Amino acid sequence: MEYYQLNQANLIDYLKSLHEIQPRFSSFDNVLVQEINDGNMNYAFVVINTLDVNQSIFVKQAPPYIKVLGKEWPLTRQRMTAEINALNYQSRVCPGMVPEVYYQSEALSVLIMQNLNQHAILRTELIQGRYLPRLAEDLSTFLAETLFYSSDFALPSAEKKAMVNKSGNQDMCKITEDFIFTYPFEHHEMNDYNPALSQSVIDSVQKEPNVRAHVAQMKYVFMNKPEALLHGDFHTSSVMVNPGQTFVIDPEFSFAGPMGFDIGALIANLYLNYFSHAHQSSVESVNYSQWLLQTIDDLWYKFETKFLSLWSEHEQSPQNAFMGKDLAGDSHQTFRHIFLQQVFSDTLGFAACKMIRRVLGVAKVADFMQFEDQCLRAKLETQVLKMATTMLVNRQAYTNIADVNKLAVNVRSD
Amino acid sequence: MEYYQLNQANLIDYLKSLHEIQPRFSSFDNVLVQEINDGNMNYAFVVINTLDVNQSIFVKQAPPYIKVLGKEWPLTRQRMTAEINALNYQSRVCPGMVPEVYYQSEALSVLIMQNLNQHAILRTELIQGRYLPRLAEDLSTFLAETLFYSSDFALPSAEKKAMVNKSGNQDMCKITEDFIFTYPFEHHEMNDYNPALSQSVIDSVQKEPNVRAHVAQMKYVFMNKPEALLHGDFHTSSVMVNPGQTFVIDPEFSFAGPMGFDIGALIANLYLNYFSHAHQSSVESVNYSQWLLQTIDDLWYKFETKFLSLWSEHEQSPQNAFMGKDLAGDSHQTFRHIFLQQVFSDTLGFAACKMIRRVLGVAKVADFMQFEDQCLRAKLETQVLKMATTMLVNRQAYTNIADVNKLAVNVRSD
Repeated sequence: MEYYQLNQANLIDYLKSLHEIQPRFSSFDNVLVQEINDGNMNYAFVVINTLDVNQSIFVKQAPPYIKVLGKEWPLTRQRMTAEINALNYQSRVCPGMVPEVYYQSEALSVLIMQNLNQHAILRTELIQGRYLPRLAEDLSTFLAETLFYSSDFALPSAEKKAMVNKSGNQDMCKITEDFIFTYPFEHHEMNDYNPALSQSVIDSVQKEPNVRAHVAQMKYVFMNKPEALLHGDFHTSSVMVNPGQTFVIDPEFSFAGPMGFDIGALIANLYLNYFSHAHQSSVESVNYSQWLLQTIDDLWYKFETKFLSLWSEHEQSPQNAFMGKDLAGDSHQTFRHIFLQQVFSDTLGFAACKMIRRVLGVAKVADFMQFEDQCLRAKLETQVLKMATTMLVNRQAYTNIADVNKLAVNVRSD
Repeated sequence: MEYYQLNQANLIDYLKSLHEIQPRFSSFDNVLVQEINDGNMNYAFVVINTLDVNQSIFVKQAPPYIKVLGKEWPLTRQRMTAEINALNYQSRVCPGMVPEVYYQSEALSVLIMQNLNQHAILRTELIQGRYLPRLAEDLSTFLAETLFYSSDFALPSAEKKAMVNKSGNQDMCKITEDFIFTYPFEHHEMNDYNPALSQSVIDSVQKEPNVRAHVAQMKYVFMNKPEALLHGDFHTSSVMVNPGQTFVIDPEFSFAGPMGFDIGALIANLYLNYFSHAHQSSVESVNYSQWLLQTIDDLWYKFETKFLSLWSEHEQSPQNAFMGKDLAGDSHQTFRHIFLQQVFSDTLGFAACKMIRRVLGVAKVADFMQFEDQCLRAKLETQVLKMATTMLVNRQAYTNIADVNKLAVNVRSD
């Protein structure tokens, strides 16, 4: 089918034509199409049967340009192919943690899926100080399972290489290379600085050769380490939650990349939220800040434990052992420890880059933008930059997340 | 054209049918076809006009199996596609250092190229103690140019990713993963130990968890770092020399991998040759051993200098700068230094794995096999394993090749 743009006028007819979708509605007579305008890249619609709101779907379509910027900003529809590929993979290894896909079309770059109308965006919940007791448990499971099962530890060599080749998403990777790893560090015209942020603080990132060199290293690792199929944009607006469920959404940046990039994105955004609470002295804020640090701690340790557990279980069958037979009995353990230390150090490096770009780059986070007081924001942004540059250049020296949490606490108290 | 096997009977007719080849021979009446039997994987023929020996070509064909093992050992012909791809690339960036290609056919998995009949295999020359004054200069040029121009520093992001996708060679990579990084370390039935080599020495590799873990790390890097288009099997039998020229041949293992894998292969084989000379006390041997170490030293420093020079020249144009604008003036230099230190440490890690596999694995080197005395060989093999395990586990700590040379000298004197 040739590509055409779905809209409020033609969507119902399109849905009626799909036998995968027909049974989801008892009738199309009273369905309502609502366009969702908060995405930047893609068109999105919620379709609901007004006579039975349990009958609803979510429709997403990638146009051959960036939606909010218009047709003068072309962008290939490869991103939807990547999202479909990622969602299929994630739902296979982590069923129940990604929206159920009802229908997909690469030709139209369309995904039709479960409408998550009982869930809120994680970032919004964190800004409002909501406790989410399942968060670390669920997201560590998602990370451990998606990263392990697409790695060389789980897949035979040829299958892994085929996965990497199939998972190219070069236009979206280029956006990340530019907007996360390059522009924020070179005083680019697309950057957006808080006027109250001092030049010397900006310079402590952009004009510090050691910081710049380590950022360049992380960019290089991002481009040269296809170790697992990533979500690719795993911040706190890519997660939807309610007290009982956690869903991961929007993997349109998915590609085969370094494990630490997904984990680091999540941790970076949790630290950003931490700084947005930790400057307040109310009991609520103190307790919530403490819960955030505990969640980060849990997230890493639960990820590590689950990843190791999947790995050792998989290698119970000797022919699955990545390094071959373990003649001494503790060679596997030694390697696994070294390996996870490397993932940890990548995680810190990527988290740092992501934190910095949210301060100096064009894309800000609501966690900070909620504050109209520019001076307050500048204070928090300065803390973020200080923490990020420290963890970036020392990432190989950190051996546990508790010490990174201590760094956050110390930076906040300075 | 459908694949068929070339042989002495049908080769002339095939050559006559190729308009690219016709002009290379004044007549086909007196051409002689000679099958070359020293390759394991592929069929090879030299075709010479007996009336004018300057009219000669080299014909190589990959059958869909391993030639020496026969049709019961199938192997895809992808290796010839990879070799053609690599040769085209190498001749573009390093003309005059690879055989000139006269004709290529992916359908028949055939390469027809310059017959290097005025050149000898480097390994043979080194075993005979021949001085090759151009060696470090030429091979450092080859490494710097092929590795730089296929990296993310030279290629735009999308072009680099396209190169990586095009350069898959999964069957040959699997051979490397198994025969270099796995079997030699797990007491595999395909291993081949010198009966005079003591079990405790073998155990110091196979049963040492730290060594095993670091080998596994190198295997993982081999599989997860497509930073440049490699030769893929860059030992001293993949180089042909005479006093005035150096040619690199046989890139059938070519794939997008870590730079240090090519440099490490070469250095490993030079160190193996070093140990084969350095145990002898004649003036000739002492001098030659010294020349080998100096060549290794030159090779690394010349590579580093040339790579840095290509890099800084390329980044004279600000839009080519990998990290973006250098606001402080020395950020580029800082990154380049860190980057090359990483390539150096990868080089040592890969060199170590390659040295070990030549002792414990199935594929031996003539440098050692020339000695019929098993005890002498065991002594040299013990030195190799000691040096290799030391440089492997400490590879991040070495900052210059002179210290690695010192390690070689010390190990030999033990």
